[in-house]
Amino acid sequence: MASVFKVAAYIYPHSDILDFSGPLEIYNCAPPPNNPHRFETTTFAHHNPVQAATKSTTYVPSASFAEVERDLESYDILVIPGAWPEAIVKLLDLDEGKQLLALIRRFAQLKPRAETGARVLQSVCSGSLILAAAGVLAGRKVTTHHLCFGELKEMADKAAGGDAGMEILKKKRWVDGGKTEAGVRIINAGGVTSGIDASLFVVEELAGKAYSDFTADIVEFERRGQNDGWDA
Amino acid sequence: MASVFKVAAYIYPHSDILDFSGPLEIYNCAPPPNNPHRFETTTFAHHNPVQAATKSTTYVPSASFAEVERDLESYDILVIPGAWPEAIVKLLDLDEGKQLLALIRRFAQLKPRAETGARVLQSVCSGSLILAAAGVLAGRKVTTHHLCFGELKEMADKAAGGDAGMEILKKKRWVDGGKTEAGVRIINAGGVTSGIDASLFVVEELAGKAYSDFTADIVEFERRGQNDGWDA
Repeated sequence: MASVFKVAAYIYPHSDILDFSGPLEIYNCAPPPNNPHRFETTTFAHHNPVQAATKSTTYVPSASFAEVERDLESYDILVIPGAWPEAIVKLLDLDEGKQLLALIRRFAQLKPRAETGARVLQSVCSGSLILAAAGVLAGRKVTTHHLCFGELKEMADKAAGGDAGMEILKKKRWVDGGKTEAGVRIINAGGVTSGIDASLFVVEELAGKAYSDFTADIVEFERRGQNDGWDA
Repeated sequence: MASVFKVAAYIYPHSDILDFSGPLEIYNCAPPPNNPHRFETTTFAHHNPVQAATKSTTYVPSASFAEVERDLESYDILVIPGAWPEAIVKLLDLDEGKQLLALIRRFAQLKPRAETGARVLQSVCSGSLILAAAGVLAGRKVTTHHLCFGELKEMADKAAGGDAGMEILKKKRWVDGGKTEAGVRIINAGGVTSGIDASLFVVEELAGKAYSDFTADIVEFERRGQNDGWDA
């Protein structure tokens, strides 16, 4: 079956540009010749334009938060990038942060999309802190940027109102945290450039190894194994 | 001497997002503690906003083309990203393409900036085709995306009105093409993610190995050697 996998990446003030640009590059790549699958990307935000990690990187999202919220079921992959933990704490204190957490919780409870059989919730870098705050990482294997292992546990425990029972894996490029009850697969990338490896892993899972190898070749990216990550 | 290295990255319609986002991520990284150097980035374009490789990636440049053109001498590093060759040919046919070539030629003739002693012209991926069209690669060692070696020679020969006498190096993450007569160092990255390695190389040359190692660690990027590139 030919599938168009729809990817939505959230962008917020001070979000790290490579955290979302790495995945967007991978998902935006032209598919291999004669391959029935392809990926289609959307960026969305509460702001328009939205300034990411520095004043030189300002983005016009292709959809509003409200639009993606309304059509959430039509997306296969939701990408949540990271930022310095202070920026994440600041985001989560705002109404827009609370709306984001609600969106993530709702996405985690959707069934796999009928057209593709897929649903993936993907964090990159400290974006896992946002997933933790949404309460969707409790009891799972997880990872994050090597400087954020402590914050990840704190955020998840706070959301759980006690020990969230996570197993934090270090030195990982990505971790497959398994599926939610509804069937949404949760993937955490490690820090920043790990998001490229994690996205290639998702492409491989959804569209096959030939597709992900073709993409890695086009972007001249020597893929790293899952265990080639960083420790603090 | 404490130095602030000023980086300007050009963004144009259909330019590859990781070609410029990789370098921007590296140059935007916070400096190591107690290090006197830092980098400061500007994005500039003929359009505002400017749509890069897909409709989901639209950017608000932090400066106009005219602003960077006016203050060109104040930039240490000029980054020219790539795109599919068709998009580059289309760009170069327009007035804005001709203005860009004139800007590149002028930059290549500037003396190193007095404040920093540096001046670097950096292409990423097929961005080297634009440098070739500007005529600044004749007689140099060069590289580009592994699918563009032929186009690179064509563009350079056309600009030279004959054999440009380049030595095209394959399987390279980056190539140091040496300095122009004025003292501007020309660095070509290989394809897409090679721009990250090339930028770390530039950081190392200008601000030292401790700085580039610190940055690579923050972005969890296992650096590749100069010869770890791709061939067609």
